[in-house]
Amino acid sequence: MLQGELIGGADPEISGAAGLSDARAGDLSFITDNSHLEALKLTQASAVIIPPGIDSHLPAIRLSKPYIGFADFLKNFEVSLDRVFPRGIHETAVVHETADVSEAVSIGPYCVIGAGCSMGQGTRLADHVSLGPDVTIGQDCRLYSRVAIRENCQVGSRVVLHAGVCLGTDGFGFLPGPEGLKKIPQVGIVLIEDDVEIGSGSCVDRATTGITRVGQGTKLDNLVQVGHNVKVGSHCVISAHTGIGGSSIIGNGVAIGGSVGIADHVNIGDGAQIAGKSGMFKDVPAGATVFGVPAIDVKESFRLFSAMRKLPELIRKVRRLEGSAGASSQTSSESKNNPGPAGNSARKGDNP
Amino acid sequence: MLQGELIGGADPEISGAAGLSDARAGDLSFITDNSHLEALKLTQASAVIIPPGIDSHLPAIRLSKPYIGFADFLKNFEVSLDRVFPRGIHETAVVHETADVSEAVSIGPYCVIGAGCSMGQGTRLADHVSLGPDVTIGQDCRLYSRVAIRENCQVGSRVVLHAGVCLGTDGFGFLPGPEGLKKIPQVGIVLIEDDVEIGSGSCVDRATTGITRVGQGTKLDNLVQVGHNVKVGSHCVISAHTGIGGSSIIGNGVAIGGSVGIADHVNIGDGAQIAGKSGMFKDVPAGATVFGVPAIDVKESFRLFSAMRKLPELIRKVRRLEGSAGASSQTSSESKNNPGPAGNSARKGDNP
Amino acid sequence: MLQGELIGGADPEISGAAGLSDARAGDLSFITDNSHLEALKLTQASAVIIPPGIDSHLPAIRLSKPYIGFADFLKNFEVSLDRVFPRGIHETAVVHETADVSEAVSIGPYCVIGAGCSMGQGTRLADHVSLGPDVTIGQDCRLYSRVAIRENCQVGSRVVLHAGVCLGTDGFGFLPGPEGLKKIPQVGIVLIEDDVEIGSGSCVDRATTGITRVGQGTKLDNLVQVGHNVKVGSHCVISAHTGIGGSSIIGNGVAIGGSVGIADHVNIGDGAQIAGKSGMFKDVPAGATVFGVPAIDVKESFRLFSAMRKLPELIRKVRRLEGSAGASSQTSSESKNNPGPAGNSARKGDNP
Repeated sequence: MLQGELIGGADPEISGAAGLSDARAGDLSFITDNSHLEALKLTQASAVIIPPGIDSHLPAIRLSKPYIGFADFLKNFEVSLDRVFPRGIHETAVVHETADVSEAVSIGPYCVIGAGCSMGQGTRLADHVSLGPDVTIGQDCRLYSRVAIRENCQVGSRVVLHAGVCLGTDGFGFLPGPEGLKKIPQVGIVLIEDDVEIGSGSCVDRATTGITRVGQGTKLDNLVQVGHNVKVGSHCVISAHTGIGGSSIIGNGVAIGGSVGIADHVNIGDGAQIAGKSGMFKDVPAGATVFGVPAIDVKESFRLFSAMRKLPELIRKVRRLEGSAGASSQTSSESKNNPGPAGNSARKGDNP
Repeated sequence: MLQGELIGGADPEISGAAGLSDARAGDLSFITDNSHLEALKLTQASAVIIPPGIDSHLPAIRLSKPYIGFADFLKNFEVSLDRVFPRGIHETAVVHETADVSEAVSIGPYCVIGAGCSMGQGTRLADHVSLGPDVTIGQDCRLYSRVAIRENCQVGSRVVLHAGVCLGTDGFGFLPGPEGLKKIPQVGIVLIEDDVEIGSGSCVDRATTGITRVGQGTKLDNLVQVGHNVKVGSHCVISAHTGIGGSSIIGNGVAIGGSVGIADHVNIGDGAQIAGKSGMFKDVPAGATVFGVPAIDVKESFRLFSAMRKLPELIRKVRRLEGSAGASSQTSSESKNNPGPAGNSARKGDNP
Repeated sequence: MLQGELIGGADPEISGAAGLSDARAGDLSFITDNSHLEALKLTQASAVIIPPGIDSHLPAIRLSKPYIGFADFLKNFEVSLDRVFPRGIHETAVVHETADVSEAVSIGPYCVIGAGCSMGQGTRLADHVSLGPDVTIGQDCRLYSRVAIRENCQVGSRVVLHAGVCLGTDGFGFLPGPEGLKKIPQVGIVLIEDDVEIGSGSCVDRATTGITRVGQGTKLDNLVQVGHNVKVGSHCVISAHTGIGGSSIIGNGVAIGGSVGIADHVNIGDGAQIAGKSGMFKDVPAGATVFGVPAIDVKESFRLFSAMRKLPELIRKVRRLEGSAGASSQTSSESKNNPGPAGNSARKGDNP
């Protein structure tokens, strides 16, 4: 089935799949490189996918890309789409008379489809999905429970929206005025291009005017926030809890770790990599790898962190040098610079 | 319509609106100050709103506050409330017999309104909204899809709650005990004052006892967390992914960037500004502008960051000074202080 | 009722409960230690729970653990479960003919229960809860509005899932390929053990293969993300906005503050404490207390932060020392190291 070279005469009965250390008898597992040889020795898997250059005591299939072969094999264990999204339009779905759902494969219980909506062939909606007026959805999409998409937003084909995704919420725009904060109407839309996947609870805000776009093939993890008028390029990977401020532009092939914050009007160049927990307040050139708050080149950030850990010793050294140079007059300014604010933080931070 | 001074004889047909760089023929755009003169030159807009002191080659309207005029103009492009929230109580809405919804303008499909609820004139609920028992909602509110409000919580007038907002979830309070963590009952409520707007997926927890309050005119972005017994003042702006720990007090007119964490029992003074990605473990005086984890005065934080980037060079300098002073005995302590933990982080951080 | 020693002859009428500073006449309050004696003096409470060694001018009950006694007392003010979750299976609930809900106490309006689901005695579901096929729920659970659980996931007994929780979303796993990112099928499940509580909007992803587990008695706050194949131990406390990357292992009794990011494949030892806003890229030993991005021992982090604030002065000192040593040749390298990137950040960070 996996079209690889078979190694080891045995043809074991395979009934499951797992990583090397979780695998049990009957499982197929895989190894990608030398760094997991110990786990390979200890695994209880019954067979393993191996790359060129690695041998196994177990029956094995050799593939140039073992993880891709393993992923293909996993498809055998997926619950069928027809069980997760039963076919047909459930009798409780509220479909507006002007909406066109004739091509949809399944629209589950308690979905609400607004006026003027349309969706393409093969698209499946689980339960409690809400589409505002004039939403268009392409072909072969999957929308899980209680996805909510507001008026006029557009979703391409083969898009997967996980439970609780919100598309088209008003962008966060207010102007200070004499009677408080004045709302800037958010009259643009959200456009999700083909092959995008968006995780549970993630939000993409509608543009103030024009379009907030998530580009073809891009994957968003859970609880990601994409602000109004943002343009996310193609084939990006954006991890959980990352937030992108209004009007920022993310290039193609960008990889963003978890819990990253990107301010408004920031441009991230193609292929850039942003390590988790970073804070982005200014542009990042294409291909850069950055880390920190504010983020800098990742190698410099490691050098700085390493240097920072020498700082208390450095202060002592300078004091000694001043001593030998007879320069002892700086003591008072030091104590001013050291109010020790972190003591209180500790207890609070440990137990928020 | 905008009541400004008309400049340029032409009276172009305006059919849309956009920022200078996104605008096309037929759009009205705007410029607020000299920093966008280049974009003004290049824009394809057909007309522009300009402030005093800036001239335009395009037909223009002069207003003292161009962005406010532009925001007013955008109202022309809003989808009508009656299309987004169709009038009437949908036949599928489950309204408890003791709830009073007689003044509501629209209650959409699959809303569930608990015992003893009430709502004011002009209020509109989209689909799948869930109100627990004894929830009160004021006048002219808009509650989007699947807003969930638990028992006894109170919402003022002209409040906008975006899709997926949760009000009144139990506060996060547990006490260690012999059989594990013991839940502290959360018997207080949430009070949302007039003119508040809360973004998708945001949560405001009910108080342990008493009230968790969000003050008049305050705006919360998406995915914001407000802990139990927090008091947020009036006219604050709180950006996405910010979390406020239990019992903290946020003053009036506070601006908080994205991804800020505020620990328990922290007071933020009126008018304070907290830059994105900051971590707040102690009180902030009124009017302060802070940044960092832990947050300090923003100007000091920039000085420190700038100084930190000189640190590797500083270490070399001190080594040279020690060399000339004959002090070469510190080498071993340095290596102890430099375990280089960040190397591993790099690879993990890039690809979480 | 609280079985403590009664002090002060009066037997005041108690009609409420609150913390010392919020309490009014008629309220019972409590004090745990000497740090709140001033609040005790000023409180308007009518009675107070006190620990051994503290006296009160108010009528008082002495208990060895006042906060636990107060928590017990709060139960008197909880809204009855029958009001929040009315008994019975609502006529609008869509229960698959192969699902077994015979033991459930309440299944609210617009719940959707998939094929093959089962739930134990005493379990209550609010409205709009969605259970995919073959989900099992134990006894005496409470699932609030629009909890969504996908196929095959398992929930123990006495579990509380707050409004908007998502269990069993696909893990975030993709492989780069010639046609873009290739999805790794996520065929594992989520297992939530007994006595777990999970806050609003939080997500636990299904495993790629095998199980993503949240251990017995663990409490998750709102908007927490737990990645695929994560194992969270027993009796942990994990605060809001914390995210845990794929395959990480959290021990027993771990306390994690808010907005913490944990990368993939990180092990956090039993009893570790992670201060809020930390970023975890490598393993943490049992019992450690850590803080920072990347996180280090909390005491070292305070020393470093304190030392860092002396850095500008240190740079000046070294310059003076170089001056007296005649070493003035480093000026150019300094300016190279100081591009001053943070200036722009300030304005953006303040107002994202």
